Amino acid sequence: MAGKFLEDFEVGEVIDSLEEYEMTPDRIAAFATEFDPQPIHLDPAVAAESMFGGIIASGWHSLSVTMRLMVRSNIFDGAPVVGVGIQNLRYLKPVRAGDRLRARGEVLEARPSGPQPDRGYLVLRVTTLRDGEDVLTQDWTVLVPRRRAR
Amino acid sequence: MAGKFLEDFEVGEVIDSLEEYEMTPDRIAAFATEFDPQPIHLDPAVAAESMFGGIIASGWHSLSVTMRLMVRSNIFDGAPVVGVGIQNLRYLKPVRAGDRLRARGEVLEARPSGPQPDRGYLVLRVTTLRDGEDVLTQDWTVLVPRRRAR
Repeated sequence: MAGKFLEDFEVGEVIDSLEEYEMTPDRIAAFATEFDPQPIHLDPAVAAESMFGGIIASGWHSLSVTMRLMVRSNIFDGAPVVGVGIQNLRYLKPVRAGDRLRARGEVLEARPSGPQPDRGYLVLRVTTLRDGEDVLTQDWTVLVPRRRAR
Repeated sequence: MAGKFLEDFEVGEVIDSLEEYEMTPDRIAAFATEFDPQPIHLDPAVAAESMFGGIIASGWHSLSVTMRLMVRSNIFDGAPVVGVGIQNLRYLKPVRAGDRLRARGEVLEARPSGPQPDRGYLVLRVTTLRDGEDVLTQDWTVLVPRRRAR
């Protein structure tokens, strides 16, 4: 089975997503209609009067796209990504239609689980970018398998 | 315009979502196909062999549903919810088809912004529940308007 193990990650290693994802007006509207039905994401007139001056994507939309970019990269190489938690999530810049998002993962920490010899924890700083500019950052803790118990 | 101001929130106040949202097989598959294409969310045979013993919803799906429940509640009463960041996000229990999710917000902190007299920051502990059991928890920092500058 494909997939990386805890031992395959090095602290400080940076891995970029292979693809980008375009935030189209239709995608922004469809996501917001289902999950974040606020005028700032759906109503051009209200959005124009807001602090953002126009429609912006739901933060949850950009976050979900970031997950897609991470899953479809070789960061985990097909290993299951089992989320434990997230710290330090920051919305840095609004995302708008036409933006093409990429994602980057930096390994902050890789440690075995004390009680469970077959797995460990990886802490990844995940950054979402648009034209090289950071728009979103977060630190994921994920469970990854260990190659063997020691 | 409808909506609450910083002054309308009291520390310790708890507000429950008005609705619930059912995680159906179709919804789980549609979300995962677009945003989290991993076998644990999409392939019953692979999922059956996993630590979860069957298909589970993407964590990002449950998080996005939580946003919907919060927006469509009277927690903010229609005020725009401008996310600044998130801390202490924890995936507590897997979410599966048939689960009916609810959300709850508890006001941890409400403070004016130093430089901007027309707004302030609210820290909300947001908990996602299924049959009264916590499945997901996170602390949101959101920007809310102040009723007037002082």
